[in-house]
Amino acid sequence: MTALPALPATRIHVHEVAPRDGLQMESHFVPTDDKVAWIDQLSGLGYSKIEVTSFVSPAAIPALRDAEEVMRRITRRPGVVYTALVPNARGAERAVDGRVDEFNLVMSASATHNLANLRMTQQQSFRTLAEVTRLARQAGVAVNISLSCAFGCPMEGEVPVHGVLGWVDLYAELGVQGVTLCDTTGMADPGQVGELCHAVVARHPALALTAHFHDTRGLGGANVFAALQAGITRFDASLGGIGGCPYAPGASGNVATEDLVHLLQCLKLDCGMQVEALAPAAQALQALLGHGLPSAVGRAGPRWQRHPRPADFEQTRERALARERVA
Amino acid sequence: MTALPALPATRIHVHEVAPRDGLQMESHFVPTDDKVAWIDQLSGLGYSKIEVTSFVSPAAIPALRDAEEVMRRITRRPGVVYTALVPNARGAERAVDGRVDEFNLVMSASATHNLANLRMTQQQSFRTLAEVTRLARQAGVAVNISLSCAFGCPMEGEVPVHGVLGWVDLYAELGVQGVTLCDTTGMADPGQVGELCHAVVARHPALALTAHFHDTRGLGGANVFAALQAGITRFDASLGGIGGCPYAPGASGNVATEDLVHLLQCLKLDCGMQVEALAPAAQALQALLGHGLPSAVGRAGPRWQRHPRPADFEQTRERALARERVA
Repeated sequence: MTALPALPATRIHVHEVAPRDGLQMESHFVPTDDKVAWIDQLSGLGYSKIEVTSFVSPAAIPALRDAEEVMRRITRRPGVVYTALVPNARGAERAVDGRVDEFNLVMSASATHNLANLRMTQQQSFRTLAEVTRLARQAGVAVNISLSCAFGCPMEGEVPVHGVLGWVDLYAELGVQGVTLCDTTGMADPGQVGELCHAVVARHPALALTAHFHDTRGLGGANVFAALQAGITRFDASLGGIGGCPYAPGASGNVATEDLVHLLQCLKLDCGMQVEALAPAAQALQALLGHGLPSAVGRAGPRWQRHPRPADFEQTRERALARERVA
Repeated sequence: MTALPALPATRIHVHEVAPRDGLQMESHFVPTDDKVAWIDQLSGLGYSKIEVTSFVSPAAIPALRDAEEVMRRITRRPGVVYTALVPNARGAERAVDGRVDEFNLVMSASATHNLANLRMTQQQSFRTLAEVTRLARQAGVAVNISLSCAFGCPMEGEVPVHGVLGWVDLYAELGVQGVTLCDTTGMADPGQVGELCHAVVARHPALALTAHFHDTRGLGGANVFAALQAGITRFDASLGGIGGCPYAPGASGNVATEDLVHLLQCLKLDCGMQVEALAPAAQALQALLGHGLPSAVGRAGPRWQRHPRPADFEQTRERALARERVA
């Protein structure tokens, strides 16, 4: 018998991506007042990081057209990193004006997905990342690069591990603080996650590595578990499990924050959060969106929630014990 | 860096429980002709075992009141074990007449759940199991005992590991061939699954051990993965993910067979099954039940399914490359 694999002994960091990665997929614009109030509610729940908005063109993603105003009006809580997606130099200027704590830059490990999603070749994207990273350094802002399709591309298929490692090496050379390995459309499986995360952690121990999973094929929890075994301690999640990807029809959203925090609590790993405390913010989100949320724990409750015994339980017991006395 | 945990090197066995554990939760009676045709369809898909029906009182579970007729009319495929739930000596007689290959006996690791579900104390249930096991031995039929609530009880809460191990020890002393550790209402988490399965496998290497998970809290896949790491090679699953438990409202069904087989294929473990081959049987089931099925892979397709590139992809590439030439 081999020993059971160990889980990290340190604090686990939960990053909330619903305000950006979730809301950008919603057809309807959440009013700025409501967004700000809801993000302020999130700030009190124990997250290490909140992805507040995106400084892309307002025409491209109208749902996030109020990026400046949202960044200006939210109440910053000490200890929480307020990050935002920054696509290019123009976005970087706006993000610096918005006083973000971190730029979240994006490119894809798949050449096809990079072109389809960002309308650039990977080389063009990398040049943009390098330029924006320089701007961030000048402004004294941290940089994280989110590498889409790190576990597979819905159009290309398999993405070779050496390609992912090659991009992460280049990001490390740019001097960025963090890299997120994104399973953009839910293609990751726990065997692959263990291997890739293990390889990246071993190669870049100084990088703040985050894993970002979708629950498209019922493997979100398994992938988080495998990433923890490989030494990953930072996870993106989306309240209620909202989000998705336009290039993979039927793909469900991000791993739900409720489901992630519940799993971490089950594993007795400290993330500074409680699944019960998320419920009011999830209810607020549901009201803002006008539709239900896919989170499993949001629906079923945590494993430690008790259900009542059937109404006839005492009679059943009495009858069973009476048979015992007769026999 | 610790090494990644190994997965089993041997064949994985998938047990289909939808005809019994799934259909018993459905409000509507599936006509016997349709059941038989559907089970015959399942027999060709590579399962190691199919739980065909239940020899409980027809009054208690009207959905399975045709147990004898179903057992008589299905076509047995060599290599597939046709099992049925047997609650007591009367059921055992009926099951022997029905020529089942295996009796599946049930009791609960939780005293409360045992009383609520089986209307007996655990001691009464154990006496019944011992009696039915003797009848099986006389008839030359194999016995598996499914231990409900092995990972927690929705009414009692935590179920101590030593209690589960104590019951499995007693079952081994009865001389049964197999034991199934059932997460009846979806309370298992992968840390606990690893520990409990590891302990049972180490203590009873000669028992055929099966794990049975529900996907109530998004952890079905994670629990299968943890059980595989602990050396479990047999899994119950339910086509489409149907099933549930009356004592845990909101609890979703069993781990879907599609999701299990997909995970095993992703992990490159041989279970003799292909997720694509399950689709016609799942469609047939959906038609029989008149409602949708919760399986994630049934909805999203396997990870190796490709999606088309956007219609404007070639123009996007040309435009990107043109910028390259200008720059």
